[in-house]
Amino acid sequence: MSYLDRIAVCHGWEPSRYRPFMISGSRYGWADEALAARLRAFPGVFDISDTDVALSSSLNTPSNRSAAMAEVLADLHDSGDLPYWRGELYPVTRRWGEAPVMLMERGAVPRFGVRAFGIHVNGLVRKDDGVHVWVGRRSMNKEVAPGKLDNIVAGGQPHDLSVRDNLIKECGEEAGMPRDLAARAKAAGALLYVCEQPDGLRDDVAFCFDLWLPPDFRPRNTDGEVQGFELWPLARVAETVRDSDAFKFNCAMVQIDLLIRHGFVGPDDPDYQDIIANLHGTRP
Amino acid sequence: MSYLDRIAVCHGWEPSRYRPFMISGSRYGWADEALAARLRAFPGVFDISDTDVALSSSLNTPSNRSAAMAEVLADLHDSGDLPYWRGELYPVTRRWGEAPVMLMERGAVPRFGVRAFGIHVNGLVRKDDGVHVWVGRRSMNKEVAPGKLDNIVAGGQPHDLSVRDNLIKECGEEAGMPRDLAARAKAAGALLYVCEQPDGLRDDVAFCFDLWLPPDFRPRNTDGEVQGFELWPLARVAETVRDSDAFKFNCAMVQIDLLIRHGFVGPDDPDYQDIIANLHGTRP
Repeated sequence: MSYLDRIAVCHGWEPSRYRPFMISGSRYGWADEALAARLRAFPGVFDISDTDVALSSSLNTPSNRSAAMAEVLADLHDSGDLPYWRGELYPVTRRWGEAPVMLMERGAVPRFGVRAFGIHVNGLVRKDDGVHVWVGRRSMNKEVAPGKLDNIVAGGQPHDLSVRDNLIKECGEEAGMPRDLAARAKAAGALLYVCEQPDGLRDDVAFCFDLWLPPDFRPRNTDGEVQGFELWPLARVAETVRDSDAFKFNCAMVQIDLLIRHGFVGPDDPDYQDIIANLHGTRP
Repeated sequence: MSYLDRIAVCHGWEPSRYRPFMISGSRYGWADEALAARLRAFPGVFDISDTDVALSSSLNTPSNRSAAMAEVLADLHDSGDLPYWRGELYPVTRRWGEAPVMLMERGAVPRFGVRAFGIHVNGLVRKDDGVHVWVGRRSMNKEVAPGKLDNIVAGGQPHDLSVRDNLIKECGEEAGMPRDLAARAKAAGALLYVCEQPDGLRDDVAFCFDLWLPPDFRPRNTDGEVQGFELWPLARVAETVRDSDAFKFNCAMVQIDLLIRHGFVGPDDPDYQDIIANLHGTRP
């Protein structure tokens, strides 16, 4: 196995299985056949043709779109057709920085193939023998990827917090980190990928941060989402990512990006060019 | 002007103006109409159809391809049809890590739209007021981009040196850097772009390195390719790259990548997602 195999998982989807999910004439997501068929139950909300699934043009403001969508999603959830449910509203956009055309329940975002933004924090410690990385193990009761290895802190980007405030909040909840320590995290880039997962089609932009932690800091989970943390040397991270699927699919990508940015993987790796292109949106 | 404008320059080319340059059934470059017409003078070397320019299948080893190409290129240079000439042989590959199918004069690489690999070194100094970057100004007698701003060290990747040895050589020639100092440079990623330049179509993979320099180090050019060096704070680099074309086209991209990786440009920039995608091969 190789880094490219891990990254290929994050680009694994079959475009022919989906039709565009359109809002106001532009594509905002992807709907599979089962979803398109189910949405025929809501003729006032969706216009469904052979080629696409469109939100009705009569829904022409963010607030009336969001309200109509909320009713549809509650119905899908009640009938068991949308098992994942987070109780958080997510903005629907085509790209970062745009005003959202509506808000929708986070659990339904991948079901509609809508782009989501998230943050991933690399918790780093400089030791005499090199860089070490805090690795978390996800709780067995997580809906997504239970028991898999994770970053010290990661989370979705909701509509009502700045990226910086969200990062500080997640660092507190997931790793018991004081505000002033979390605030030292530095943006380090972003990863782009689209892939099929059990909850639907993930079209993600993952903002990556590096946070250098004092050697005596010990992460402590406060929200029950993490079983425990371990501090690993980069070499162990590299080996584990390359040779197993122990890391959650997208966290593997975050670790590979870390290995690239810190020079642990360099041009002497014959896959270097493809790894870098595929971390940032180019499909293998 | 914006960072995206700088990056768009590095993706500026019109695919319809080119036909594939084929070797042994695979595309290795792009030839424009003028080149295709000129190469009809060498019927034993090229098979030219309406759709592509192919190296003759009778040339079936790296050494006989390289020898035939050398004769053609010398003829083009003598007749004034290939003004750029470097006197260095470059490997022809489709991707990093492959064995080359032939070697060819570096000055002809963009003329045939063949992919080239290069190294770019960011010379960084940590000061009390933040990160500073050494900026070089290219000599007025350079064939490419005379007088433009540049990295402290940059150079093409020839076929007969490892990336690491090439970096050490270039650091010595371009910035008078001792071997042990240059050896501290750390790989930090790569940039991918294709664009039209005066010497042809540049299909480049630029390997980026960060090198933290002691505050008392002063770069000193030894090969006449640099007029002089200045140490700039990141903020001045950011402003200059964003608001002018003072940097050589691809060095602007290297600086933007530096600003991204060091968190100077973060998710609060609405162009963040597109900047990152476009630094790594996705066309705007």
